[in-house]
Amino acid sequence: MSDLKNDLILRAARGEKTKRTPVWLMRQAGRILPEYRAVRASLSGFKELVETPERAAEVTIQPVDILGVDAAIIFSDILVVPEAMGLIYQMVEKKGPLFEKTIRTHKDLEQVKVCDPEELSYVYEAIKITNNELNGRVPLIGFAGAPFTIFCYMVEGSGSKTFSNARKLIYANPELAHQLMQMITDSTIAYLKGQINAGAHLIQIFDSWASVLGQELYRDFSLPYMKKITDALFGLAPITLFAKGANFSIKDLASLQCNTVGLDWNVPVSFAREQCLGKTLQGNLDPAVLYSSGRDIVYHTKKMMAAFVGHPHIANLGHGVYPDMRPEAVKTFINTVKEYRHE
Amino acid sequence: MSDLKNDLILRAARGEKTKRTPVWLMRQAGRILPEYRAVRASLSGFKELVETPERAAEVTIQPVDILGVDAAIIFSDILVVPEAMGLIYQMVEKKGPLFEKTIRTHKDLEQVKVCDPEELSYVYEAIKITNNELNGRVPLIGFAGAPFTIFCYMVEGSGSKTFSNARKLIYANPELAHQLMQMITDSTIAYLKGQINAGAHLIQIFDSWASVLGQELYRDFSLPYMKKITDALFGLAPITLFAKGANFSIKDLASLQCNTVGLDWNVPVSFAREQCLGKTLQGNLDPAVLYSSGRDIVYHTKKMMAAFVGHPHIANLGHGVYPDMRPEAVKTFINTVKEYRHE
Repeated sequence: MSDLKNDLILRAARGEKTKRTPVWLMRQAGRILPEYRAVRASLSGFKELVETPERAAEVTIQPVDILGVDAAIIFSDILVVPEAMGLIYQMVEKKGPLFEKTIRTHKDLEQVKVCDPEELSYVYEAIKITNNELNGRVPLIGFAGAPFTIFCYMVEGSGSKTFSNARKLIYANPELAHQLMQMITDSTIAYLKGQINAGAHLIQIFDSWASVLGQELYRDFSLPYMKKITDALFGLAPITLFAKGANFSIKDLASLQCNTVGLDWNVPVSFAREQCLGKTLQGNLDPAVLYSSGRDIVYHTKKMMAAFVGHPHIANLGHGVYPDMRPEAVKTFINTVKEYRHE
Repeated sequence: MSDLKNDLILRAARGEKTKRTPVWLMRQAGRILPEYRAVRASLSGFKELVETPERAAEVTIQPVDILGVDAAIIFSDILVVPEAMGLIYQMVEKKGPLFEKTIRTHKDLEQVKVCDPEELSYVYEAIKITNNELNGRVPLIGFAGAPFTIFCYMVEGSGSKTFSNARKLIYANPELAHQLMQMITDSTIAYLKGQINAGAHLIQIFDSWASVLGQELYRDFSLPYMKKITDALFGLAPITLFAKGANFSIKDLASLQCNTVGLDWNVPVSFAREQCLGKTLQGNLDPAVLYSSGRDIVYHTKKMMAAFVGHPHIANLGHGVYPDMRPEAVKTFINTVKEYRHE
C-alpha cells in the first residue's frame, strides 16, 4: 500500500481516523461522463468495452482525472461471472441484460460449471493496466455480484421487478438452488482472488437484488454464501458488502468478516450506526439529490455527512449515479465531501 | 354494516378481537384464476374490463366464490385517477402501463385538472353491482394509489426501477411537484368518497413506489398528502395504508388517522409491531412461499401467523399474488389462516 499517494479509502475501511472523509460514486465510470460516451461510441457495444482491457482501464481512470474521486473502480460487469460459468449474456440497449439460457431444473445445471478464473483474465489485465496508469494516485476497487444477485440473473434470465422465478426456485427446489449458489460462490471467490492478485486494493460485493428476500430468507439463503466469500478473502483486501434494500439485514452483514457495510438512501443513518457497530459505513446520499441546484446539493450532502460524524465513513451515493446527471452536479457533491470538516 | 354476514375484516381493522384472523390477497381478482383469464380473453383488453362494470364486478366476486377470501376488492386500476385527470394510459401486454404524455414542466401541468369524480362513475357502478351480487357475504374493499405513486407514473410515464424522472422533479422543481401532488390528492379524495358512497366498506391506499424515497423525503413529500386523504376520509370507512418498501416510514404512517398499516415481507413483524402500536397490521407472507409444496406453505403461513399473535391482524401476502401461482396453493394459504388458532 505504501506506493499509494492517497490511501484515504483504505484507512477509512480499516476504521482509522482520516483527515477527511474519502468519496467515490457507484457507476462513476460510465455514462455520466461525455468522455466515457465517446469511448463507448467507438466500440461495438458494452461488452466489447468490458472485454478490452486497455479501454476498460481508460474509462476506469476517467472519473479520477475528471471528477477527483478518492478511488477508481474497475470498469466491468457483475455478469462476467455467470458468463464464465457458461451462461452467455447480451446487454440490450435500454433493456438491460438478457440470458439466452436459464437455470430452472437439475438438467439446466449441466449447462454451467464453476468457472475457471483464467477465463476472466481480461479483467485482471484491465486492473494491471489501470494501476500502472494510475501510478498510485488512488486505490483501485475490484468487485463482484453477491451470489444471490447472480443467482437471480441466472434463474430469471433478465432483470425483473420481483425476480419471482428466482424466488420460486428457492422455495420449490431448495436443493438445486443451494447447489447453484455454491457454484456461484466458488466461482466468485476464485474471481475475486484473481482481482486481488492483479492489484485490486479493496473489494466490494454488490447484492443488488437483496431487497426481494425477507430478512429470514436473506439470512438463510444469501448470507451463508456471503460469509464463505468474506472468510475466503479475509486478510487479502478490505471488503465492502452492499445489499441494496436489505436494510433489516445490515446487522447480519456487519457480523461477517467485512470492513464496510454499504447503505442505500432508504435506511436512516442512525439505525445503521446502531446495527453496524465496529464497521465502516459507506453511502448514502439519495442519488436524486444530484438533480437539484448546486446550493441544495451542498445542503443535502452536508446533512448526510453530519449524520455519520464520529463513525468511520466512506462517502458515496446510496446507489449508482444516474446516467443523465450533470458532471458538474457530481463534482459539487464530491467537493462538498472533500471540504467537509466537523469541529 | 349489519347486513354483512362476514364482517371479520372490518372488525379486525377496528382493532376488535375476532374469532379468527380474516384473510384476503392483493391481486386476488386476477390472472391466477382461469375464470378471470376467460373473462379477460372475451374482451378487447385490460382497460375494457376495468371500464365495464358488470364484468369488473364478475371478476371481483370470483375469488370470494373460488378461494373463500374474507373480502372482495373491486377490480380496477390505480391509473384510472391520472386518466380522469387528463393523462390517458395504455396497458401494454408484458410491459405495463404507458402514458403518451407526462408532466415535467409547468406547461405540462396545463394538460391535467383535478378530476371530476363523476368521470369515474364506472367504478362506483361496479361497486354497486358487486355489493348487490355479493349480497352481504363479505365486505368490499375500495382502493386508490397514493398521491406519490400516481405522481411517479404521471411524471415518469411508465414503470421504472428508479423513477429517477419523478424524483428529479421533486428536487429540481419542488413547487411544481407539490402542485401536482395537491391535484392528485384532491382527485383521490373525491374518488374515494365516491367509492365509499357507492358502497365500499374499507379503503386501501397503495403507495407502491414509496421505496424510492428515503425516510425523510417520504415524510416531507408523500406523508403530508397521505394525511390529507386520511383526514378527509376519517369516519367514513376504515382505511389501510400500504407503502411498499418504505419500512422505516411505517411509524409515520401509523401516526395518521388510519386503521391498518400494510406490511411487505421485508419488514420483520416484531419491528412493525413496535412501530405501529394501536394500529391493525396487514400482511405479510413472502408471496414466493406460495411456490413451495403444500406442507411448506402451511409451515410458513403458521409461522407468519404466530408472529402477529396478540396484535390486531388481517392476513395477506406481503405483495400481490404472482400471476403464475396455482389456485390450490393460494387456497392452502387461505385455509391455513382460517384454521389457525393460537391457544
